[in-house]
Amino acid sequence: MLNSPLVTESTMLCLIGAMLVPMKLCDELPEYTVHYFDQRVDHFGFHKRDTFRQKYLIYDKEFVERGPIFFYCGGEMHVELHAKQTGLMFTWAREFKALLVFAEHRYYGDSMPYGETSFYGSERRGYLTTEQALADYATLAAHLKANRTGAAKSDLITWGSGYSGMLAVWMRVKYPHLAKLAYASSAPIGYYSGEVPCGKFLKSVTAVFKSESESCAQSIRRIWNVLQSMASSRDGMTFLGEAFNTCQPVRGDNISNLFRWLKESFRTISMLDFPYETDLFGKLPAYPVKEACNYLWNHQQTERDLMRATYKAVSVLYNHTGEVVCYSLDNTLRNNAGWGFQACTELIMPVCSDGMEDMFNPKAWDLKRVQRKCMNKFGVWPDPQRLKTIFGGASGLNNVENIVVTNNQRDPWFDGGILTGSEGVTVISIRNGAHGHDMRTPHDKDPISVTWARSRVRAVLRRSISPFLNYVLG
Amino acid sequence: MLNSPLVTESTMLCLIGAMLVPMKLCDELPEYTVHYFDQRVDHFGFHKRDTFRQKYLIYDKEFVERGPIFFYCGGEMHVELHAKQTGLMFTWAREFKALLVFAEHRYYGDSMPYGETSFYGSERRGYLTTEQALADYATLAAHLKANRTGAAKSDLITWGSGYSGMLAVWMRVKYPHLAKLAYASSAPIGYYSGEVPCGKFLKSVTAVFKSESESCAQSIRRIWNVLQSMASSRDGMTFLGEAFNTCQPVRGDNISNLFRWLKESFRTISMLDFPYETDLFGKLPAYPVKEACNYLWNHQQTERDLMRATYKAVSVLYNHTGEVVCYSLDNTLRNNAGWGFQACTELIMPVCSDGMEDMFNPKAWDLKRVQRKCMNKFGVWPDPQRLKTIFGGASGLNNVENIVVTNNQRDPWFDGGILTGSEGVTVISIRNGAHGHDMRTPHDKDPISVTWARSRVRAVLRRSISPFLNYVLG
Repeated sequence: MLNSPLVTESTMLCLIGAMLVPMKLCDELPEYTVHYFDQRVDHFGFHKRDTFRQKYLIYDKEFVERGPIFFYCGGEMHVELHAKQTGLMFTWAREFKALLVFAEHRYYGDSMPYGETSFYGSERRGYLTTEQALADYATLAAHLKANRTGAAKSDLITWGSGYSGMLAVWMRVKYPHLAKLAYASSAPIGYYSGEVPCGKFLKSVTAVFKSESESCAQSIRRIWNVLQSMASSRDGMTFLGEAFNTCQPVRGDNISNLFRWLKESFRTISMLDFPYETDLFGKLPAYPVKEACNYLWNHQQTERDLMRATYKAVSVLYNHTGEVVCYSLDNTLRNNAGWGFQACTELIMPVCSDGMEDMFNPKAWDLKRVQRKCMNKFGVWPDPQRLKTIFGGASGLNNVENIVVTNNQRDPWFDGGILTGSEGVTVISIRNGAHGHDMRTPHDKDPISVTWARSRVRAVLRRSISPFLNYVLG
Repeated sequence: MLNSPLVTESTMLCLIGAMLVPMKLCDELPEYTVHYFDQRVDHFGFHKRDTFRQKYLIYDKEFVERGPIFFYCGGEMHVELHAKQTGLMFTWAREFKALLVFAEHRYYGDSMPYGETSFYGSERRGYLTTEQALADYATLAAHLKANRTGAAKSDLITWGSGYSGMLAVWMRVKYPHLAKLAYASSAPIGYYSGEVPCGKFLKSVTAVFKSESESCAQSIRRIWNVLQSMASSRDGMTFLGEAFNTCQPVRGDNISNLFRWLKESFRTISMLDFPYETDLFGKLPAYPVKEACNYLWNHQQTERDLMRATYKAVSVLYNHTGEVVCYSLDNTLRNNAGWGFQACTELIMPVCSDGMEDMFNPKAWDLKRVQRKCMNKFGVWPDPQRLKTIFGGASGLNNVENIVVTNNQRDPWFDGGILTGSEGVTVISIRNGAHGHDMRTPHDKDPISVTWARSRVRAVLRRSISPFLNYVLG
């Protein structure tokens, strides 16, 4: 009975651990345990002997001997957040008798190699690389297989969404003896491997808003000029400070943060356009794009009204619950030391806008400028070819196998995904899915395309570990 | 016509570049060119910006656009030596229209990251690891594909024998987007991944000698006790110095080098038991095991005669031409800083002898002792599990594909090879081949098993690049 999609992807019930419960409880994950594992700071040389404690989460209530290990490859956030947004692992744990592991990425969350000083100097931060993170995962995976009761012969399946999805794929590429199969959702490898034109991403963000309302996208396109013109006068800046409820007065030296914050808000809203309430980086309403556009439906309103409406629109993202007192111009949503460094070293993503095909202010992609900035900030010189040489990019995966990727078409990261399948790479496109949609806990509001994609992924997973399942399920 | 094994593996002729020439000339390789490429000392972090010049050889006389790249992954020696012992690449260059590349391994030959001080301190020598070496090859391969005329769409096939063969396999495992196929000969991955009992290797050396003459093996088994007893008296040591023609007097503090040197000599002779004269680390006669045993046929000779005979036997290896004036007890054949370090870090090979099933003096494998020694010498603590975690060992290759390995049964390294094939891994056993036999220039004295193995390897290679070959060969 558990094999039937109608139960595990129920329209009204969901599975937590062994229990079928009403859907509204599904946000509550079953209790996992927290662990730490000693890792070498450097896996590839013998010049340094430092170690650090890597955090990982375990859920083993459904695991039986020789069941598979679902291994989530943590990305750019606290590992608990990954568990929260990957409910599908919990949903499937029972059916697959799987051991769930969520491993935290080095230099994020609580896995700081040198505590609060982890980013002081290149000698400390220099070990934040994708290859080192993958070696952490490989070492932890080998340790778990060797030491967890019943796991010695378990097939390990890597999971990940977004950057984590990239890592899940690369685990399969680089450690095929440890990772039997990789399942990646919305993994934008192509964006970081120089395979997608720089304008594509913001065009896709625009498309998500346009699909809600043309007028909304037109309103957003107006914002930047209005901001620019208001920022040129003292009165205008005073008004902006009030309209956007900033903690500090808006001034010439922080106005660019206001631009960046607004842009990032629209980008993020477009990624997280789920048909139900979510709580990832903060609470979001169902269909947040629609919610934001409710304030921006009239692209001909006055400049001041447009600014007030814009504030309300982005508050959908950062202040859905009304708890935020004021917005600090010192911070942006992605104010994250780890990601800043990775974006200057390996994860180079060309982004540009022309203000015509997209709804942002025109901005060219200037690699030299980025390189100079990175040199000043971290003493590193970004090489946009690097990731492609190491991992082959999104289009170079035809020599590998046992990978299943899902690409959510309503996600602006879509175009950077692995879009071409092969004998060994199963590619599933999800017409109405948002970023990483399929890996979330199944929900009665999920579009059919998401539910269908999950059943296809399940079939691939079942096939890859079928001898065991046949044995256990009889 | 070139497709016929009867020509390219001729009994009386061999192919150098475009010319069929009499076999005796085959030792002469066609002229390659020497190049250098700037590599980062560290590929996996951003704490260090040092670079070094990696040496590589190119032979492009037969290359045509889109022809494959035969990429030899250099190992623990000067890259020229690899070219010399891999005549098959030259032999096949024309048929495959291939570009030949021989890349030198970092910290060997002329590819020293810090010149003569490359082994001073862990900050310098610490970057000698297999993973760094593979990243060098990947970076060089990507560079060649991007910059060599006609190579952009070339399939890259990695080649290697012995340690190089291990690297060739791992290039395919770790960089499948760059390496289409790996061809490895006599690659003893299992020996270095803790998958073979420690006694196996010296038993296999013994078997090679036994296959020549039981009495010879018995003579060698006597050597160690005789040495031990002579070393206990001043007279005995004086005699040993004369018998073994040592440059220094034999004393209590260097007698262990004499033991080691003799053992290594027998090991090496058994590896290089080719049916024709060779010139690798020095000139060797055809069938060197038989030559050595010619002096050791009588295991009942007097102790002093046995010592004199032993000297003559090992002189087959190190003084075939009679040019060596005396043997220095300061050096052993494998006195090689790079290998010493690798054998203390990643390349841990358990070796023991019992003096019963093998012809050596009994010696247990003592990991703790090795670890303490390595700690004293290099400040590193060998982890015998490490290589298996990183690469999966010889028995964990069932999740990969496009690999062809040959195992030469007359090679004592045989048992550590990848012995089990799968859908993606073609395993070819060569009954009468010595170490890396199949990769050498075809020779009229080659056993049929070697010639047959080459034709099977060729078929795998042809299949893997067939669209191109079909196009060019019509």
